[in-house]
Amino acid sequence: MALNTTVKADHNAPAITEMLAKFVVNHPSKGWSDAVDNEAQRTFANWLGCAIGPSEHETLHAALAAVNELAPAPQASLLGRKEKVDMANAALLNGISSHTFDFDDTHLKTIIHPAGPVASAILALGEHIGASGREILDALVIGIEVFCRVGNAVYPNHYDRGWHITGSTGMLGSAAGCARLMKLNVLQTQMALGIAASTPTGLREQFGTMTKPFHPGSAAKAGLMAALMAKHGYTASKRALEAPRGLMQVFSDKTDWSEVTENLGQTWEIALNTYKPFACGIVIHPSIDGCVELRNQYKLTAADIEKVTIKVHSLVLELTGKKTPVTGLESKFSVYHSCAVGLLYGQAGEHEYTDEAVNRPEVLSLRAKVEAIVDDAIAEASSDITILTTDGRTLHVHIKNAIGSVERPMSDVQLKAKFVDQSAPVIGAEKAEQAWNLARNLVDCKDLKALLAAATRS
Amino acid sequence: MALNTTVKADHNAPAITEMLAKFVVNHPSKGWSDAVDNEAQRTFANWLGCAIGPSEHETLHAALAAVNELAPAPQASLLGRKEKVDMANAALLNGISSHTFDFDDTHLKTIIHPAGPVASAILALGEHIGASGREILDALVIGIEVFCRVGNAVYPNHYDRGWHITGSTGMLGSAAGCARLMKLNVLQTQMALGIAASTPTGLREQFGTMTKPFHPGSAAKAGLMAALMAKHGYTASKRALEAPRGLMQVFSDKTDWSEVTENLGQTWEIALNTYKPFACGIVIHPSIDGCVELRNQYKLTAADIEKVTIKVHSLVLELTGKKTPVTGLESKFSVYHSCAVGLLYGQAGEHEYTDEAVNRPEVLSLRAKVEAIVDDAIAEASSDITILTTDGRTLHVHIKNAIGSVERPMSDVQLKAKFVDQSAPVIGAEKAEQAWNLARNLVDCKDLKALLAAATRS
Repeated sequence: MALNTTVKADHNAPAITEMLAKFVVNHPSKGWSDAVDNEAQRTFANWLGCAIGPSEHETLHAALAAVNELAPAPQASLLGRKEKVDMANAALLNGISSHTFDFDDTHLKTIIHPAGPVASAILALGEHIGASGREILDALVIGIEVFCRVGNAVYPNHYDRGWHITGSTGMLGSAAGCARLMKLNVLQTQMALGIAASTPTGLREQFGTMTKPFHPGSAAKAGLMAALMAKHGYTASKRALEAPRGLMQVFSDKTDWSEVTENLGQTWEIALNTYKPFACGIVIHPSIDGCVELRNQYKLTAADIEKVTIKVHSLVLELTGKKTPVTGLESKFSVYHSCAVGLLYGQAGEHEYTDEAVNRPEVLSLRAKVEAIVDDAIAEASSDITILTTDGRTLHVHIKNAIGSVERPMSDVQLKAKFVDQSAPVIGAEKAEQAWNLARNLVDCKDLKALLAAATRS
Repeated sequence: MALNTTVKADHNAPAITEMLAKFVVNHPSKGWSDAVDNEAQRTFANWLGCAIGPSEHETLHAALAAVNELAPAPQASLLGRKEKVDMANAALLNGISSHTFDFDDTHLKTIIHPAGPVASAILALGEHIGASGREILDALVIGIEVFCRVGNAVYPNHYDRGWHITGSTGMLGSAAGCARLMKLNVLQTQMALGIAASTPTGLREQFGTMTKPFHPGSAAKAGLMAALMAKHGYTASKRALEAPRGLMQVFSDKTDWSEVTENLGQTWEIALNTYKPFACGIVIHPSIDGCVELRNQYKLTAADIEKVTIKVHSLVLELTGKKTPVTGLESKFSVYHSCAVGLLYGQAGEHEYTDEAVNRPEVLSLRAKVEAIVDDAIAEASSDITILTTDGRTLHVHIKNAIGSVERPMSDVQLKAKFVDQSAPVIGAEKAEQAWNLARNLVDCKDLKALLAAATRS
């Protein structure tokens, strides 16, 4: 991960989103000439005839058949909740939910969050059509493979341009996973990928708003819809990904085809997947990891700590150098807050990044004792931490790779603790335990009913 | 409209869409190591917890409230058909239908088809919430204004890159129109435009497939969903359009902000809208127009015609030079076929571009007598036509601007004839007449019920 500074940008654009919003809201009804009003009616009338004309065309038949697959609406569960909705919107909502805390999995080669777009779609579809755990797992591996390989081929240029790659390539993973799950044939699957190629979602500009988690949700829904349409004969370009006016050349200057073609079916991108132990930006992780390690090794309490000095790469402070965050969201971009909660509580989950936690007196007090020093000799994935204790000891640790990295993966015990920490407050401790066991051993599920019963509220 | 040859393209990309489709379909279940399978289960289990955790977060509440607005599903009519579906999918399907014959309106400055994304969304929403004709028309004018101004700001670079601009900027028009119709406030409308900015649809690579008309439909649906989400408090960047990592800088090298800001609310892009008299590519129109004119002026029949010579700009043959089309779709890209049907039938509507029409003996016979000569002294929008008759006369006409251009707009009589030609075979002549009258005088509709009754089958 590196910041790109070569893509030119205009930082002085007028506030046109706001200007257009004011225009939409405030311009008076018929605030234009009769001639404009007349042309608007011609526009509407001409459009209406053009929509009536093809209403029995095979294009409509295919699209309507796909839409009809979404009815009746209560088809698929919303995780952690009681409601069911149609499977396309279940894919959307579960995809949004799984990225809301920015706590999901990461394919570090591309900063793709692989599961959101794929798992959200195949679980919703799988619940509706009665898939087995084995089938879900196959669709997950294969969907993520398609998704991350396309990501590899266009990263980093595509991301540098400003696309949020999780949503802008994720619909391909969703389409692939859903096509697999529905046992579409090769041509149908090619069409599903093709239709999905027309619907990338996601801009990095949305980071820090609800539209960031919308991206994997939208990708999940778009891929599922593409697969349903393809199943019913909807067509797309056979070269929608690679053609000169296909997705990859359109949205990236880099298109390394070999990243898709080489060793396909022999190497597996999901094997490179990582899980965040901490609910914040990944560059902070080594610093938290070191703080937790020193805390546990020396049984430190807040009273023991005089000063904390972390030496990190400049990128860390560029991305997460917020000294005095006041909201939970801001605190996720503060290495100072993160070190303080790591030292105080031995963890940095979602509960440590709430609006309440960020203003807790003990957190504020310890945060003020954390100093960060830039040292570009230290790798971006590393952190060097020194704690001066009130009784005069100097404690030191150098974290080369944080827990949760490919080099130091989270253990199943740690993953389960993270799962329960998030889920138990929502569905209760017993169901959280059940849901973990069923999900962690998904291949043993004959169907998804028990899993979904455990993962939702009754 | 000009072909761009400066955007570099790789024409030799391997067939990765097909390769990935084969992989998705044919790779065996668990065709990987235990370690990969294990990681897949960890990925799934971790994702599940991450989706359960935030399920009561305000992000989910806002998104779910928007989805719940789509139920119960029979909310909005499908034009020309009997069914009703939820309003988001009605927007999708009517948007698809209205572009299926490629016969809808055109904003020639950008080659945007303005009505599809906007009218499809606001009609579906308006039917559900009980809007008046006046409200629909206001939302149409304002939605198209937002849509085409953003289009003006990024055209032609954005289009040259390979985006199908109707779908890739249309969701902004849909979001604007729906926000207006629901009377959202400025901040909500800004959020609606912001959410929509993350979901451009459309690649030029899809031309010639069903995914081309999917683009305006998808844009209509995306904008409507964005407005519903914004209504319920979903957030996006306030500068989602113009920021360095916002939509416009991400998907275009050209961003002429003045195209958005200057004279906003004073000039109207819808006043520049045009309607196709002929159901084929716009560069063929002057040639058909001239053939129809000579046919009518001299009362020509097929037996009168010895030879037809058209002189046109090279672009015309580049785009529509198909000499021997065999399908209806191919015949839309044949200036030869188009001249033949214009001479034979005096029109070139959808009925003249069917699989049957293209192989009719009288069409084949006359088509063979049409010769096209490139002459770049003739403008792209013009055609010079000479007919040699069997009795030795030489008939000539030069069409500077075809009927349907801004310079020679279709009359209401012609627009109505086009409407009826398309609609009567679907809904019957009486309803077609009613639907035209109601749509053409939309401001007089107190509500949309009578219009929708006329525009659908009972």
